[in-house]
Amino acid sequence: FKSSKVLSDSAREKNMFIQGKVNDINTQLVDQDAVVILEKTPIIEDTLSELFSGSRLTLDMKNDIYSTYRLQPPPHLNEMKVTVVCPATEKHVKKYQRQESYLVEETAEDYRSITLPYIESQSFSLQWVYNILEKKAEADRIIYEDPDPDVGFVLLPDFKWNQKQVDDLYLIAIVHQKGIKSLRGLTSEHLPLLKNVFQKGKETIMQKYKLPASKLRVYLHYQPSYYHLHVHFTMLGYEAPGCGVERAHLLGDVIQNLQSNPDYYKSHTLYFPLRADDGLLTKFREAGKI
Amino acid sequence: FKSSKVLSDSAREKNMFIQGKVNDINTQLVDQDAVVILEKTPIIEDTLSELFSGSRLTLDMKNDIYSTYRLQPPPHLNEMKVTVVCPATEKHVKKYQRQESYLVEETAEDYRSITLPYIESQSFSLQWVYNILEKKAEADRIIYEDPDPDVGFVLLPDFKWNQKQVDDLYLIAIVHQKGIKSLRGLTSEHLPLLKNVFQKGKETIMQKYKLPASKLRVYLHYQPSYYHLHVHFTMLGYEAPGCGVERAHLLGDVIQNLQSNPDYYKSHTLYFPLRADDGLLTKFREAGKI
Repeated sequence: FKSSKVLSDSAREKNMFIQGKVNDINTQLVDQDAVVILEKTPIIEDTLSELFSGSRLTLDMKNDIYSTYRLQPPPHLNEMKVTVVCPATEKHVKKYQRQESYLVEETAEDYRSITLPYIESQSFSLQWVYNILEKKAEADRIIYEDPDPDVGFVLLPDFKWNQKQVDDLYLIAIVHQKGIKSLRGLTSEHLPLLKNVFQKGKETIMQKYKLPASKLRVYLHYQPSYYHLHVHFTMLGYEAPGCGVERAHLLGDVIQNLQSNPDYYKSHTLYFPLRADDGLLTKFREAGKI
Repeated sequence: FKSSKVLSDSAREKNMFIQGKVNDINTQLVDQDAVVILEKTPIIEDTLSELFSGSRLTLDMKNDIYSTYRLQPPPHLNEMKVTVVCPATEKHVKKYQRQESYLVEETAEDYRSITLPYIESQSFSLQWVYNILEKKAEADRIIYEDPDPDVGFVLLPDFKWNQKQVDDLYLIAIVHQKGIKSLRGLTSEHLPLLKNVFQKGKETIMQKYKLPASKLRVYLHYQPSYYHLHVHFTMLGYEAPGCGVERAHLLGDVIQNLQSNPDYYKSHTLYFPLRADDGLLTKFREAGKI
């Protein structure tokens, strides 16, 4: 195998997705396109004593009660897993390609002059959201509804959650009120709506899943993935995609910020990540903001 | 080192936290309590060709275009990182034990009546922090220093980062000013300090690692793991532990909040997760706040 390009990798998960060419000596096929996935394996408790006795240890650093070492375990105790996709098509390559992200700093003026015009030019369809609100689709998935047109919402499971265990509970509250695009559209006049979603969402989850508010992370995304106001409810211990500080805003903080400053989200600078292929990033680049 | 118990582990992150006893042949100290953290290291692109040519490969499974193998790399290409805490106290053991978390809602009054008295009663030692600031330890690890006593800081790699690849870059800025316990201690008078850390931290990372500000997540933890003000700089794409919205506060937001409200962090309610065995959680429970 000859690697030609790293498609993506994760320092946290210790894996790497690599594009390259494979020569198979058995089949005489040469230079076949392939994707190779390399991944370190979890540490196994049963091997610990052999690991500590049979490895080379080098001191790196010592400070007070803390010290760090580099350990070189014998190969049979420290395998990697290799997955090969061969022949790989263009589709496989794209699937494993990481898109880099960039943090954007959006002032209130940037929102008006760059983000809002971009969102409006894209005219993302919200028909699927309206279908849910009008019970034309996914009606059987709705877990709770407050039908009030101003402060009401529907609560339903996110597609990422299979509803089989609460460990990765993930629900979405979609508000009935139309026209609030995102966090940027919120002012103190929306406090009754936000408080209602917060309160009744937590109550419903307590009744249905026996999870108290202290086990929940309740937040909005900015940028959201669609521009109709919705709120995420996830299990606190579950590291849901998009719950990082760079994209998530706790609903409790949002309510509080609007209480002390009615125009907090209309006036403050907001930070958010955008993927390299996002058209909005191009707009920020063109405006010389990145 | 003799391991006695696995405190926690992560198959996803390939790490393991182990309690055990250490015998030190240099100091003749025997059977000292220790916590050892084992972690596999990220895969390094530069080593790939040597990895593929110099490892033993065993076929596991083949199905259509997919196949999996076990790879046994030479030890020098597949190190583990070992962090030793020794002697370890009961507190260290607890810190690394897997625990459920609960979200706490801390009003300004709760901070004064519950959190602050608890922190003060614990008298956590900050000696290791002062050792760093005074160059009595880890002096060779310091990447940048602004020695100013009011707005200065030292910047050094977090223990979690092995500095071999920027994918999981993790640096900590520790301020020279003593006595600022956490986010709760910040007012607008600290804006020059915070702006200095933000600005010079970003400049240093750009110079040394060629990463622009748009690739960085810069934030504080609340609660922090030690009560001397410090700021986290991590690579945006790296899902560093503790970068979730429930614990992290973007430095950019903190500066902005203090600019518009000098007492923002003295007056607002803050949310944070606490582990089941945290003494502070017990205090909140006793006060009927959870």
